[in-house]
Amino acid sequence: MQPLVGVIMGSQSDWETMKYACDILEELQIPFEKKVVSAHRTPDYMFEYAETAEERGIKVIIAGAGGAAHLPGMVAAKTTLPVIGVPVQSKSLNGLDSLLSIVQMPGGVPVATVAIGKAGATNAALLAAAMLGIHDPKYMEALKKRREQIRQEVLESSDRLE
Amino acid sequence: MQPLVGVIMGSQSDWETMKYACDILEELQIPFEKKVVSAHRTPDYMFEYAETAEERGIKVIIAGAGGAAHLPGMVAAKTTLPVIGVPVQSKSLNGLDSLLSIVQMPGGVPVATVAIGKAGATNAALLAAAMLGIHDPKYMEALKKRREQIRQEVLESSDRLE
Amino acid sequence: MQPLVGVIMGSQSDWETMKYACDILEELQIPFEKKVVSAHRTPDYMFEYAETAEERGIKVIIAGAGGAAHLPGMVAAKTTLPVIGVPVQSKSLNGLDSLLSIVQMPGGVPVATVAIGKAGATNAALLAAAMLGIHDPKYMEALKKRREQIRQEVLESSDRLE
Amino acid sequence: MQPLVGVIMGSQSDWETMKYACDILEELQIPFEKKVVSAHRTPDYMFEYAETAEERGIKVIIAGAGGAAHLPGMVAAKTTLPVIGVPVQSKSLNGLDSLLSIVQMPGGVPVATVAIGKAGATNAALLAAAMLGIHDPKYMEALKKRREQIRQEVLESSDRLE
Amino acid sequence: MQPLVGVIMGSQSDWETMKYACDILEELQIPFEKKVVSAHRTPDYMFEYAETAEERGIKVIIAGAGGAAHLPGMVAAKTTLPVIGVPVQSKSLNGLDSLLSIVQMPGGVPVATVAIGKAGATNAALLAAAMLGIHDPKYMEALKKRREQIRQEVLESSDRLE
Amino acid sequence: MQPLVGVIMGSQSDWETMKYACDILEELQIPFEKKVVSAHRTPDYMFEYAETAEERGIKVIIAGAGGAAHLPGMVAAKTTLPVIGVPVQSKSLNGLDSLLSIVQMPGGVPVATVAIGKAGATNAALLAAAMLGIHDPKYMEALKKRREQIRQEVLESSDRLE
Amino acid sequence: MQPLVGVIMGSQSDWETMKYACDILEELQIPFEKKVVSAHRTPDYMFEYAETAEERGIKVIIAGAGGAAHLPGMVAAKTTLPVIGVPVQSKSLNGLDSLLSIVQMPGGVPVATVAIGKAGATNAALLAAAMLGIHDPKYMEALKKRREQIRQEVLESSDRLE
Amino acid sequence: MQPLVGVIMGSQSDWETMKYACDILEELQIPFEKKVVSAHRTPDYMFEYAETAEERGIKVIIAGAGGAAHLPGMVAAKTTLPVIGVPVQSKSLNGLDSLLSIVQMPGGVPVATVAIGKAGATNAALLAAAMLGIHDPKYMEALKKRREQIRQEVLESSDRLE
Repeated sequence: MQPLVGVIMGSQSDWETMKYACDILEELQIPFEKKVVSAHRTPDYMFEYAETAEERGIKVIIAGAGGAAHLPGMVAAKTTLPVIGVPVQSKSLNGLDSLLSIVQMPGGVPVATVAIGKAGATNAALLAAAMLGIHDPKYMEALKKRREQIRQEVLESSDRLE
Repeated sequence: MQPLVGVIMGSQSDWETMKYACDILEELQIPFEKKVVSAHRTPDYMFEYAETAEERGIKVIIAGAGGAAHLPGMVAAKTTLPVIGVPVQSKSLNGLDSLLSIVQMPGGVPVATVAIGKAGATNAALLAAAMLGIHDPKYMEALKKRREQIRQEVLESSDRLE
Repeated sequence: MQPLVGVIMGSQSDWETMKYACDILEELQIPFEKKVVSAHRTPDYMFEYAETAEERGIKVIIAGAGGAAHLPGMVAAKTTLPVIGVPVQSKSLNGLDSLLSIVQMPGGVPVATVAIGKAGATNAALLAAAMLGIHDPKYMEALKKRREQIRQEVLESSDRLE
Repeated sequence: MQPLVGVIMGSQSDWETMKYACDILEELQIPFEKKVVSAHRTPDYMFEYAETAEERGIKVIIAGAGGAAHLPGMVAAKTTLPVIGVPVQSKSLNGLDSLLSIVQMPGGVPVATVAIGKAGATNAALLAAAMLGIHDPKYMEALKKRREQIRQEVLESSDRLE
Repeated sequence: MQPLVGVIMGSQSDWETMKYACDILEELQIPFEKKVVSAHRTPDYMFEYAETAEERGIKVIIAGAGGAAHLPGMVAAKTTLPVIGVPVQSKSLNGLDSLLSIVQMPGGVPVATVAIGKAGATNAALLAAAMLGIHDPKYMEALKKRREQIRQEVLESSDRLE
Repeated sequence: MQPLVGVIMGSQSDWETMKYACDILEELQIPFEKKVVSAHRTPDYMFEYAETAEERGIKVIIAGAGGAAHLPGMVAAKTTLPVIGVPVQSKSLNGLDSLLSIVQMPGGVPVATVAIGKAGATNAALLAAAMLGIHDPKYMEALKKRREQIRQEVLESSDRLE
Repeated sequence: MQPLVGVIMGSQSDWETMKYACDILEELQIPFEKKVVSAHRTPDYMFEYAETAEERGIKVIIAGAGGAAHLPGMVAAKTTLPVIGVPVQSKSLNGLDSLLSIVQMPGGVPVATVAIGKAGATNAALLAAAMLGIHDPKYMEALKKRREQIRQEVLESSDRLE
Repeated sequence: MQPLVGVIMGSQSDWETMKYACDILEELQIPFEKKVVSAHRTPDYMFEYAETAEERGIKVIIAGAGGAAHLPGMVAAKTTLPVIGVPVQSKSLNGLDSLLSIVQMPGGVPVATVAIGKAGATNAALLAAAMLGIHDPKYMEALKKRREQIRQEVLESSDRLE
């Protein structure tokens, strides 16, 4: 099935984080592809990936990276598709470096940045669904249903606490 | 004309930053509305705004706020429309507080966060265009044209430098 | 017995921290209720909770949250009861994000912020007691007695050290 | 008239910030006293101030300080009255040092910390009013009226923006 | 034997760090006393300790504390003896709060601040020895001998590496 | 004359910083070229620049950028020439974002990072000279002469101070 | 007159900060010398200065530096005299770099670190006086007198405020 | 064989990090020497090492250190050879102190700084190879070959992911 979302990550080790994005995409039944694309180790492949994404039918790109996390911003520089950046938690600076490298983009080339780590990966997929949902009610409905579920979960956890 | 993008900000003083988002929306001919909606001073109005945005035809919400910047996240909690958060530069902590308050959302409720200040406001509008462009080629084209323009500007500035 | 203090937290996982607040409230014999109330996952319930707290007899609200910790500030936006915010230690940024999101409230809507984590949860309960103690000597006395106890503990630990 | 709130600050230069607390107390007609009390330069006077505050009829203490801001925490160590700490913006570290010195109190001795600078000073006074309002409806009413005013101001500023 | 150095710490748990100061003092044969003195839990005892230290023959005070680490600065406010502050590593902010609370003292009341944790505790004792060594050649000699030892250790470790 | 050093910057506004690098290169008589090359606005030109630098005779690349400063790292990804990264001071985060984005490169693709701002730009040029000086004694001599000059300047400024 | 304190600074521009140390030394009538000694630009002179300080009768060294502030730590590595480090406020990182470079010394070689900027320079001189005062009652008395003066100043400023 | 690169580290414990630099140098067949040279514990040896490195045939120095990491900067002050600084991850501040102490060098004396920890040590060696490669095609070729290898590894890991 034609993937609508491209999930890419700068290193195989980022999969530990990015799998949470893929779990949500599967849950919401959004077709996606997933690849390791390194800004620094495979720059040409990254450019090719970004340049051809639109014509291959990709609608949203989710890019996760850590440290001097250039992948989301460079992909964004090569496509006008919306790019969502997930800061992967880094070893020494806990992802603050990843976050700043991704979010502090100059005017002209945006990256939609989400939280550091697992929560961010989860939200990247939900954000992709919301973007697709602008014109496709199926995804908007799926999001609304999910919101209702997590609302119920909170209420139940509150009942258990009391 | 039916606004597609809702630009809201937590305080009138945020206009100094958020006007850059509106400038881009005008440039790209994306109809929008702009309002001061304070999470802390007008919480009910904020909820009403977020709840009714979708039915009023809004497709994307851009929310700017500074300090304990709750506006983007709370609006995101009340709608499944994509919400873009702009961290406004704060007086004492230079927007680091605004950035963390906006970007570190828990799994389940995403905010698409952009850079602190003017660059972020600019990019929020471009990101909104990219989201609308997923299904509306007019906006995708406008973005591509703008990319070409800023590319030319860089090349010209490089010529001037030499 | 009519609860005087409402202890709420953004997620069940915050209980590990917030239980220290409840331990102190029990120790000081202050009636309280405890609930999971999520700003982002149950926004309407949060508003309802905050709006009805005063009429239900709650005098002080203690709200714990982590990351983009919007719960204390949003509850404060919906009530004029004093709200105490406990920054729960977050995974990647160690609670610095929680602290800034809670403490950097704009002028007009205060949150009484305490330390990150266990010490903060403990102190939130003691602060609630001090607030109640303004007019109820029973709680003021309980606090004074507790102060004398911890003073003794320090002196004894000093003796053991020597 | 018997002051109910004691506003103290570590240095005369903190008045630039702390005057915003006094403005609010006047607006809400809460009797208060104001003094310069330095933890480091007048430690004995500080202890005497804290020790005698309760018997002199003070109900809440607001203490502002910058840098290694020890005043709020030390006053809190010498009284069981609620103490509100205002981090004054410091020259080199922009108040981050003031904030951490005030908020990171150990379990046992709480300081109700508010935002850095003017917003914090404003909120310190509002928080004091909320504490007094637990048993005195006059202050609770004053706060509710003020909330309605700032709500109106936001709505009007939104109208002007459009 | 008359202690020349007073080693105090804000909590028994700081002993894990402060024992490194005591180890060095023993190694250099500097008589010392050690006590738990809490700025927040035993404020009067702290003041008494600081006020009487000089007359009891103490020449230098080493004070270790974590979080809103007020002990070194408050002791310094109550004596003109040199006070050395050791920032103990805190749980959530890794001692950055301890460091800033200790080092950012206002002009007029100095605290000689050393590194966070074990290295700082070690150096606090060495610094005390250097201060005593200004007039007592015995301690200056002991320091020189120790410097020569650690110099040798580095050279030997370099030989082992090769 | 064949340029040996390529000085590039992400934006014309970076010239205020990067001119200090060019001043030093001129002083040391190292032929260089200077260009505006934006990672985000001219990604293809950046790749072409980096790819062809070696064959055009460039020996060292100095790249300055601010914010999510991807230019040095991406150029480094496309060449094995040594790349020196200059973090330009950014508006909101004072260059901390620029520094982390440049220095925290993953293993495999190094960027030789220097200080934020003017000092860094100056040192980037001196570092380039040192690299060229490995095999060209002319540049090594020029550096030694410059060191002697700044040594003299310090000694003279010390004389003036006394 | 034989100087007892050596005041050194890494650059002539540090005089703006370090003059506050010299003002206090003059006020307390402590003989001192002042010099520009750069760790990076005059390393040999720095070593010579540190090595000969003790034999020239210097008892305490005050060293101010900014950025990668190596001067205090390197002087401390070359003498067993007590060394006080003053972090000079830096342009981009506001002195946080200076502070960490000075205070985070490894176990074995202490630097007595004071606050960033003017307050730190003032306190460096007071700390030097306290060290000299361990055996010379003249300086201890001078410090006590000064403490009484600043105490009076606070009380007077409090009177003026009321 | 004549070593071309000198790998030094401030403490034996830095070997855990610096071994990654040596692994790369071996892989690229660049002759090197490795030593423990402590700026603070063996200052004279450090100066001697730096002063004689050039005449002993060393072309590039790699210096790793943590905390108040003065080694790279002080070696750079004593030689005009290019010096690469590796910030070793520190215990309390995670290497942020090491990074700032190394990178924030004043204009005049550069240190080529790389990432904190293992990635930085790896890149230090690659950077040394790139510097040597300016005139020695053997090292430039080795680097190109290595780039191709890591490119292949990424592509293969991407295949495995799918």
